[in-house]
Amino acid sequence: MALVTLIEYAGAPAEVRAVYDDIMRTRGVDWINNFWKALANDPRELARVWQNVKQVMAPGALDPLVKEMVYVAVSATNGCEYCTYSHTAAARKQGMSDAMLMELLAVVGLANETNRLANGLRFDVDPQFRK
Amino acid sequence: MALVTLIEYAGAPAEVRAVYDDIMRTRGVDWINNFWKALANDPRELARVWQNVKQVMAPGALDPLVKEMVYVAVSATNGCEYCTYSHTAAARKQGMSDAMLMELLAVVGLANETNRLANGLRFDVDPQFRK
Amino acid sequence: MALVTLIEYAGAPAEVRAVYDDIMRTRGVDWINNFWKALANDPRELARVWQNVKQVMAPGALDPLVKEMVYVAVSATNGCEYCTYSHTAAARKQGMSDAMLMELLAVVGLANETNRLANGLRFDVDPQFRK
Amino acid sequence: MALVTLIEYAGAPAEVRAVYDDIMRTRGVDWINNFWKALANDPRELARVWQNVKQVMAPGALDPLVKEMVYVAVSATNGCEYCTYSHTAAARKQGMSDAMLMELLAVVGLANETNRLANGLRFDVDPQFRK
Amino acid sequence: MALVTLIEYAGAPAEVRAVYDDIMRTRGVDWINNFWKALANDPRELARVWQNVKQVMAPGALDPLVKEMVYVAVSATNGCEYCTYSHTAAARKQGMSDAMLMELLAVVGLANETNRLANGLRFDVDPQFRK
Amino acid sequence: MALVTLIEYAGAPAEVRAVYDDIMRTRGVDWINNFWKALANDPRELARVWQNVKQVMAPGALDPLVKEMVYVAVSATNGCEYCTYSHTAAARKQGMSDAMLMELLAVVGLANETNRLANGLRFDVDPQFRK
Repeated sequence: MALVTLIEYAGAPAEVRAVYDDIMRTRGVDWINNFWKALANDPRELARVWQNVKQVMAPGALDPLVKEMVYVAVSATNGCEYCTYSHTAAARKQGMSDAMLMELLAVVGLANETNRLANGLRFDVDPQFRK
Repeated sequence: MALVTLIEYAGAPAEVRAVYDDIMRTRGVDWINNFWKALANDPRELARVWQNVKQVMAPGALDPLVKEMVYVAVSATNGCEYCTYSHTAAARKQGMSDAMLMELLAVVGLANETNRLANGLRFDVDPQFRK
Repeated sequence: MALVTLIEYAGAPAEVRAVYDDIMRTRGVDWINNFWKALANDPRELARVWQNVKQVMAPGALDPLVKEMVYVAVSATNGCEYCTYSHTAAARKQGMSDAMLMELLAVVGLANETNRLANGLRFDVDPQFRK
Repeated sequence: MALVTLIEYAGAPAEVRAVYDDIMRTRGVDWINNFWKALANDPRELARVWQNVKQVMAPGALDPLVKEMVYVAVSATNGCEYCTYSHTAAARKQGMSDAMLMELLAVVGLANETNRLANGLRFDVDPQFRK
Repeated sequence: MALVTLIEYAGAPAEVRAVYDDIMRTRGVDWINNFWKALANDPRELARVWQNVKQVMAPGALDPLVKEMVYVAVSATNGCEYCTYSHTAAARKQGMSDAMLMELLAVVGLANETNRLANGLRFDVDPQFRK
Repeated sequence: MALVTLIEYAGAPAEVRAVYDDIMRTRGVDWINNFWKALANDPRELARVWQNVKQVMAPGALDPLVKEMVYVAVSATNGCEYCTYSHTAAARKQGMSDAMLMELLAVVGLANETNRLANGLRFDVDPQFRK
């Protein structure tokens, strides 16, 4: 049960529908997922977040598959259930196989482990790593 | 000031030196960074963690550059200073440019943002994302 | 399914009932939520935590609505489901509208994003910010 | 030592200077803090993040002081050193006293505590809190 | 609904069965929990993680009950639902009572609170604590 | 540089001195560490936090050494520098050896790793673990 009403396309104001249309067109899908339906309670916030996702996740110096896998890595680290499901689905659409997911999570797990070994033992950063 | 003594090569027992030698050989470097010198206080722990790093970070379904960038993503999310410096250096050695780093952190930042929008609004995972 | 038994008012020892009564009186409600029923497995712990909540959340230099919104901000950042539901309810009781909730979470999301940009790029704190 | 070069105003390209000018004008200051100088390595990323900060932190349903205090709450929860210094300074500029800071952090501390009591005991969300 | 298929003993390849058998023998149980069934999608990853758990959780300088309670402390801090359930069960098998669990979580809560008071006020580490 | 003034014993009001005296007496030390000097900006907050630490960290169902090690585990997980130094010192005073610290952090690291494997693969909690 969401903490705000989910805004469906049918009952949405024009500015919300315009963002929904852009999401569906950009992603080549014919439905809107709950994340956007919740944000639509504040149409300016919906537009702001969508604009960010559209710009940051577009192909650039990194390809979209790598970006989606990084999104999964962060979401698993933070324990965000919704984002883990939605971005694992997105990464698979970009070509991530089960083998790639397993290996991705192995890196995520290892990084989370060694982050705490460093945090617990508190040795200095080696000067070689500071440029 | 580290919370344990850093074990230098010169004074290290044979089993520690063997791991140090393997690290330098595998990475093609001629020095040992502080992370390993701290772990060497427990030679079995040193061997265990190195074995894990060696296996998980090796080329597989994902290439080493992607793995290092995922490592940076997790370390920045967790705020681990040592790991951020050391794995940014490692990712650069694998070919990460400044443009790639900036774009990587843009994804990390965005994921951390939307993770909290999802955690705060608590809408259900869409059935389409559950296979 | 909780990891400890929930202690209902009817079967609670006197010292637990005294705290339950104080919670209901202070908050002007006629029921006890699960958080307290779980803590009641250790009556001293129940009394300790309630004493803290009562003191910290009382009006002071900050008003109770701001305090509840800060509680929501922290709970969404940590991904605590129970606390997000219970403190969003509490903040609404204090007057938080949907518009305020959406704006609160926009700030929470942004802060989580820029925290990681800072953690990933590791620039120094400007001297102007250190007093 | 930052992981990227800090871009000073003097040597910055026109599009970066335009953002720097807008930051200084909007905030009524005559200097640029390191956060923006690091982001300026990617002028589009600089513009994107500044646009977000400008929109989200503007007065709206919540006043700017409350927003800055929420920013501090999130930054302290995540342990982000840079953001804690910079947003504590910003909150003070908006009128936060020492007494307000102490009380803010008391709430932040308490929320972080009870988040873990809930996460550790795993009782259900009371139906009363789900609308 | 897991994000990968759970590999049951009956249909598992020989190398997976060998790990499953070792888990059951080592722990004196006759079933495999979902954690391992998910990891078994990558038999080398299954073997790697099991080898780590077996080595790290064995009796040593710390006894197994203390280790399981530390595991619960970390899992509650991170908000990991699965690990909180599974390691609370494991700690109880090692002798943890309800009173011990309540006291453990009191420490976990307090540490999470004071961690943020320190992160928010940013006083220096006293020289007496640096050896 | 702390974000508030550190309150020294010499210039402290009577109610602060009373808490300082109790801290020194309870712990058998002759100095006050910075954590308390920062909290003393709000004497009621100082008294509240000290009361909690005194009650929670006292011997009970768990012994003080285990409690201090749990404190270190949480602080390393959260990356709190001050608390890692201060509670590692406290744990050593209670008898923690280097071997125990290394083993403690091995458990902390492993738990942080497997927490993310569970968060990323999202398999259900086995019914056997839910009582």
